[in-house]
This record gives sequence, C-alpha cells and structure tokens, in this order.
Amino acid sequence: MARARSEERRAEILRATLEVIAERGYRGATLGAVAERVGLTQQGLLHYFPTKEALLVAVLEDRDRWDTGGGGRGGEDGAWRLELLGSLVEYNAMRPGIVQTFSALLGESVTEEHPAREFFTRRYTQVRAGMAATLRAEYGETLPGGLTPERAAVLLVAVMDGLQYQWLLDPEAVDMPEAFEDFLGLLRGGGSGPQAP
Amino acid sequence: MARARSEERRAEILRATLEVIAERGYRGATLGAVAERVGLTQQGLLHYFPTKEALLVAVLEDRDRWDTGGGGRGGEDGAWRLELLGSLVEYNAMRPGIVQTFSALLGESVTEEHPAREFFTRRYTQVRAGMAATLRAEYGETLPGGLTPERAAVLLVAVMDGLQYQWLLDPEAVDMPEAFEDFLGLLRGGGSGPQAP
Repeated sequence: MARARSEERRAEILRATLEVIAERGYRGATLGAVAERVGLTQQGLLHYFPTKEALLVAVLEDRDRWDTGGGGRGGEDGAWRLELLGSLVEYNAMRPGIVQTFSALLGESVTEEHPAREFFTRRYTQVRAGMAATLRAEYGETLPGGLTPERAAVLLVAVMDGLQYQWLLDPEAVDMPEAFEDFLGLLRGGGSGPQAP
Repeated sequence: MARARSEERRAEILRATLEVIAERGYRGATLGAVAERVGLTQQGLLHYFPTKEALLVAVLEDRDRWDTGGGGRGGEDGAWRLELLGSLVEYNAMRPGIVQTFSALLGESVTEEHPAREFFTRRYTQVRAGMAATLRAEYGETLPGGLTPERAAVLLVAVMDGLQYQWLLDPEAVDMPEAFEDFLGLLRGGGSGPQAP
C-alpha cells in the first residue's frame, strides 16, 4: 500500500516535470520548480529523485515507455513499425520542450562521468537492436538501399538525433518530419520520379 | 604591433585549449587549466576569453577554419568535396576530445539563451549551404537517391552529428567512419552488389 502510494507520487512528479519542461524548457525545469508544482519541499522531492539529472532521466525513460509501448524495447512484436517512427518524429515536432530536454541531456551525457551516460548508452544499444529488428521484419537481410538492418539502424538513430539539434536551433529552416521522411525514402531505395512502384 | 602580439597570444591560448581538451576532455578544460598551460593568471585569460563557452566556441571556429579551409564556408570552390567529408569523419574518429567538446557544447546550445546558441545556428546555416553547393556541383539538381542538394544537406549534417553521440557513448559498438560511408552510399543511390559502376 505504501509502495503503491509512493509509485503514484513518482508518476505525479514525472507528469509535473513534463509540464514544467513544456512551460519553461530545460533550464527552467529545476528541482525547485517541480517541487512547487507538486506541493513538496525541495527536500521532499529529493527523496524521490536525488538530482535534476536523475529526475530528467526518469522522464525520458517514461517517454520511451509510452512512445514504444514497452520499456524501450518495442511494440508487441518486439519492434517498432517503420512508419510509426515517422509519426513519432511528427509528434516530437509538436513538443519542443521534451526534445530540448532529451537533446541537452544527450549532449551532457558524453562528458566524463555524467549521471545520464549509462542511461543513454544502454538506451542506444536497445534502440539500435529494436530498429534493426523492425527493418529485418520489413526487408529481410538487405534493405533496398543495400544496407543490413544493423547498419541502417545506426543511421536511423543518428538522423533522428541530428535533425533534432538543427530543428531546435532553427525551426524555420529545418522541417524535421519532412527530412526524416526523406531519409526513410533513401533507406527504401530512394529514387524520385518515375521508378519501380 | 600590439595587435599582432595579441592575436599571437590568442592563437597560443587556442592551441593550449586543444591540448587540455585532448588530455582531460570537456569537463577538464577549465579556464584555470588553460590559464596554467599558457602561463597566465585566470584573470589574464579572461581578458582574451570572458567565459569557458566563449573560449570553446573560439576553438570550434578555429577547427572549422582548418577543416574546411575557409571560415566554415568551404574550400576554394566555395564547397567541400564529398569524399573529403569521409576523410574528415575518419579524422574525427581519432580525436575524441574535440568531438566530445563539440557534441557537449552543441547539446547545451539548444537551451535558453546559451552563449553558444548563435554560433551553432549560424554555423549550421553555413554548413548546410556549403554542403548543398558540394552536392549540386557533383550531382546537379537531383541526387541519385532522389533528393535535392538542399534536402540531402540537412541529412548529411544530421548523420555526422548524430553518429558522434552514438560513437562517443559506445565506441566499440559504433564504427563512425563506416556508418558515414554507408550514408554516402545511400545518397549516391544505394544498392549493394552488382550495380552500375
């Protein structure tokens, strides 16, 4: 019973953090701002999440769970559908706050002994494997563009992440969903105009 | 004369910063560590670069100048050669310190009012334009994979940046130069095995 209440409280804190991120962005999402939102003292919040980084990693883990329907490991068949990825990128283009949080934290995570480093390293291992499974299910051992599922998966992740930085810096100049569709087109064998249907 | 000496001093500071980055990484590259290396007090260093971010942006601008042979705007024909980009990625794979500094600073730059935000926004506008010019010179208005030079340039930049994060987090799992070549293959029209030469 105490455990259930504690988990409920945790979920409430994560929801509040998302709201604060949406309103004030990554820098504004301080432990103090989140504590105020849920009616806790900052000391009380630290009981659930010891640092800002731990709180934000929990938010991103939660996002992964929702976005992929299963702990970062994919949908019911153990994999994302490729077209769903396009929709995910479109959805991300409507929530710059969480994309900014992800991108800022990813940037920090490559520095020495950063608390989010392990999360991102583990996440990418899982995400690459999940995407490779998706690609294999759709295309077999070789994609139309000539790559194996594993080698295409590395690029798929790189394009999603890289586009987010360009889009966050200059949303007028970069149409993130369009660019991602362009990349899916290349994976599918590319070629514009009159080609094999 | 005083101006020449000041510029010489600036260049010396940038070289020292690169050395410190190579030895201690992004976090270790503090103003104090750089000041010590060049025999200045921290106060003296602040005369040249008012913040750590300003110093690191200057290092990255300097790198861009070297890497592209002309202030981030490309080579003598106003553009990179596409195959040179592959070599640049290979070169980057041998200098994780500067790639880490770039990636960490890029991550920070997407947050509100970060001092490096303007640098990266301007840089990407220039880099996308330079790459589009390269692609147009090589392929005309449509690449073999079907994209226009401008739309391919967005993806080219995204892949370079995105691969760096995966590689920095897990260099054993991600072969950055190989993955970048895979992407160039997709832009060139993809397809493995027996194809048009």
